[in-house]
Amino acid sequence: FEYDAPSMKTPVPGPKSKELTRQLGDIQNVGAVNFFCNYEESRGNYLVDADGNRMLDLYTQISSVPIGYNHPALMKAITNPNNLTAFVNRPALGILPPENFPEKLIESLLSVAPAGMTRVQTMACGSCSNENAFKAMFIWYKIKERGASGPSAEEMSSCMINQGPGCPDLSILSFMGGFHGRTMGKCCLATTHSKVIHKLDIPSFDWPIAPFPKLQYPLEQFVRENAQEEARCLEEVEDLIVKWRQKGKPVAGIIVEPIQAEGGDNHASHDFFIKLRNIARKHGCAFHVDEVQTGGGTTGKFWAHEHWGTGDPADIVSFSKKMLTGGYYFKDELQPDKGYRIFNTWMGDPSKNVFLSEVLNVIRRENLLEEVTRSGKALLQGLYELQAQYPHLLSRARGLGTFCAIDARDDVTRDNLILKTRDKGVLLGGCGEMSIRFRPSLVFKEYHAHQFLNIFNDVLAEY
Amino acid sequence: FEYDAPSMKTPVPGPKSKELTRQLGDIQNVGAVNFFCNYEESRGNYLVDADGNRMLDLYTQISSVPIGYNHPALMKAITNPNNLTAFVNRPALGILPPENFPEKLIESLLSVAPAGMTRVQTMACGSCSNENAFKAMFIWYKIKERGASGPSAEEMSSCMINQGPGCPDLSILSFMGGFHGRTMGKCCLATTHSKVIHKLDIPSFDWPIAPFPKLQYPLEQFVRENAQEEARCLEEVEDLIVKWRQKGKPVAGIIVEPIQAEGGDNHASHDFFIKLRNIARKHGCAFHVDEVQTGGGTTGKFWAHEHWGTGDPADIVSFSKKMLTGGYYFKDELQPDKGYRIFNTWMGDPSKNVFLSEVLNVIRRENLLEEVTRSGKALLQGLYELQAQYPHLLSRARGLGTFCAIDARDDVTRDNLILKTRDKGVLLGGCGEMSIRFRPSLVFKEYHAHQFLNIFNDVLAEY
Ligand code: FES
Repeated sequence: FEYDAPSMKTPVPGPKSKELTRQLGDIQNVGAVNFFCNYEESRGNYLVDADGNRMLDLYTQISSVPIGYNHPALMKAITNPNNLTAFVNRPALGILPPENFPEKLIESLLSVAPAGMTRVQTMACGSCSNENAFKAMFIWYKIKERGASGPSAEEMSSCMINQGPGCPDLSILSFMGGFHGRTMGKCCLATTHSKVIHKLDIPSFDWPIAPFPKLQYPLEQFVRENAQEEARCLEEVEDLIVKWRQKGKPVAGIIVEPIQAEGGDNHASHDFFIKLRNIARKHGCAFHVDEVQTGGGTTGKFWAHEHWGTGDPADIVSFSKKMLTGGYYFKDELQPDKGYRIFNTWMGDPSKNVFLSEVLNVIRRENLLEEVTRSGKALLQGLYELQAQYPHLLSRARGLGTFCAIDARDDVTRDNLILKTRDKGVLLGGCGEMSIRFRPSLVFKEYHAHQFLNIFNDVLAEY
Repeated sequence: FEYDAPSMKTPVPGPKSKELTRQLGDIQNVGAVNFFCNYEESRGNYLVDADGNRMLDLYTQISSVPIGYNHPALMKAITNPNNLTAFVNRPALGILPPENFPEKLIESLLSVAPAGMTRVQTMACGSCSNENAFKAMFIWYKIKERGASGPSAEEMSSCMINQGPGCPDLSILSFMGGFHGRTMGKCCLATTHSKVIHKLDIPSFDWPIAPFPKLQYPLEQFVRENAQEEARCLEEVEDLIVKWRQKGKPVAGIIVEPIQAEGGDNHASHDFFIKLRNIARKHGCAFHVDEVQTGGGTTGKFWAHEHWGTGDPADIVSFSKKMLTGGYYFKDELQPDKGYRIFNTWMGDPSKNVFLSEVLNVIRRENLLEEVTRSGKALLQGLYELQAQYPHLLSRARGLGTFCAIDARDDVTRDNLILKTRDKGVLLGGCGEMSIRFRPSLVFKEYHAHQFLNIFNDVLAEY
């Protein structure tokens, strides 16, 4: 089914991609377009472009392709007559769900629910998943505060004109370098602190932002230094919670990624996250783990937070990307008290659940989490060797499963390395200031890791 | 292909729906669930529920079903082998679009572009369409303000910590009763003022909210009074723009629905909108027409703003729902200067464009806009007659195409009428405080209007 190697015909973007970029440029901004793709010809780990170049894909549509291109299981799902109606009739899930909806949730999303959670709300993308999780935390916080009494008349009327007390001065604490979406001129974007271009010119909120630990790699060598750095950040978190409470903008929730992805693949220890979770509990803040990029198996466990080894990792876990549908899991007490408080027209898309069920089947049948652990080891080991060999170019190799990254000397070198590697047939992505990130799909094998490492070695040797 | 009448077996929700609601209640809040549906058995204008009840659907998944359930053209599209890859491989459209993307945009979305617009950005839902349109307006406003010089170092650094001048104090002016989405604890929600339950407990922005004209119906009878009311509102709009500029939070854009939908189907005259558009131009604000609910043909023209009869209706027009994909059209100058400023993982979903192309074909082939005008007339005429016959129950019948509404005596009566009509086999929706809204799909014929009117007449007679 799959190809066995890259095959390059032109530099990338080739002439056909360039012409298409020109055409699309008449319709919208194309500043971010890399090249155009022939998705029909793409297979498994290999993405084929409009000029017939076939690349090993370690970026997979910003980490959103779970089991490679045109997987036979997915092709079969969409040609199954029983599934057609889910594609053709998109329901307003919040009011008129299809009769198989509870059953489908149980067999797909709930079968991989994080520890301690039996509830899930589907959404359509990572941003509305985080947004609505924020809303759930605000509602939870206010209900808790009100106790038995309902909202006051003043609260009811003031919220309609965007004023307190109905629209309360609540905040969400996030971390510098975090990324939680960019819809809203406000909410998610207010918690996103990864790149200037995401934020400039867009009004925002006065919400607290804590420093995320800047660890030294490899982690095993800097245990004491890193522990100190993490303690410093946790202290700052507690200070901010107290300060914002005093400011009259209490922190209703803390949001954090298990690995800061867009921000540069920044890791922290399991201990850091467990302590952070405890701080949230101590101060009455909900704890929201954003697994939009880390979830779905790429770290070798289905959720990255499973690596922390705790039975009570979070109050809310949001997801999207590799899960194909967006949404969030939540604890019972985070359930809003009424209907329509968390609501929009579609509330997700059951046609994406059809594919997710198949993806989960494939993951189980083919033991893909074990494969990810194995190929991730090969990838990271190879990166260690390359950074030892090219210390003037590479440093700070790090990773969990195939969710790996390495730093280049500077941003220009990083961008050049990515382009040169692409011209040799491997597609990579950047993140943070000067990191290269690896985000293959779950069908990435040791064999593909070695294929990439060989090509990358050639690029580095020539550099 | 279609059924010819409702067929009711149980009250709604029936026992099967009730049992499924109980099951789903263990997984998420079901406060908004009406009943469960059998989408496989649903056809055209008729929605079949889990208990085998078949209802004439005048609500169509909150106005999001363009050409009825299981339309043969859509069934054909999804079984066409050429389309499979668009469903199975969802691309990150902003960086790696499929090679047929420009062509598909031209043949689908751009073939129905509003006057003066040749550009379109796809998005995944109404909320992110509006959100990103807001971002485009903020960016446009700041670029205009900066002139030739780029952002300052201070702007670049301050935006990363949610502070000015990088996150500027800009605002969007919206109207009381407007609804523009509810993601964001902030942005769209800050412009939404339709129901307490949408807003309570969610922090918001200090953005100006103008009164929307409260017209007296039928419009022909109250021309002078309504003109005065509209003049009052327009004056208030100008006052707010000036006031917010003085406050240091200049209005970058004005957002308005051609008919306030969630807010209660509030209409205003063509003259009102043309004057509003001129006020926006005069004060250097972008003019954003939100056609998420009104667009796609339901008013008898493809876009509701076409009724205004102006060649320059807006700077930005957002859409979703019946268009199946979200997004917004925009004028050349609203195009952001760089890539990644308007960006997210998916930027829409090409599989929805596959269906949209077919929908547009059906609309053209079957002259559905003319049909909508015809059946809308029959519907509105019937509503006029019913309100004359039952003046103690109904008033203020109004509409454009099949986008109609009528007020009940009070909210309790409205809710009761909707439930009783449902038990007789017609599905209706509410909006505003005491309005019933009619949102059939575009394949709703005069025949269906009479079917509904007969049933509704029975309900009213028994009430
Ligand atoms: S905000 Fe998530 S799909 Fe629109």
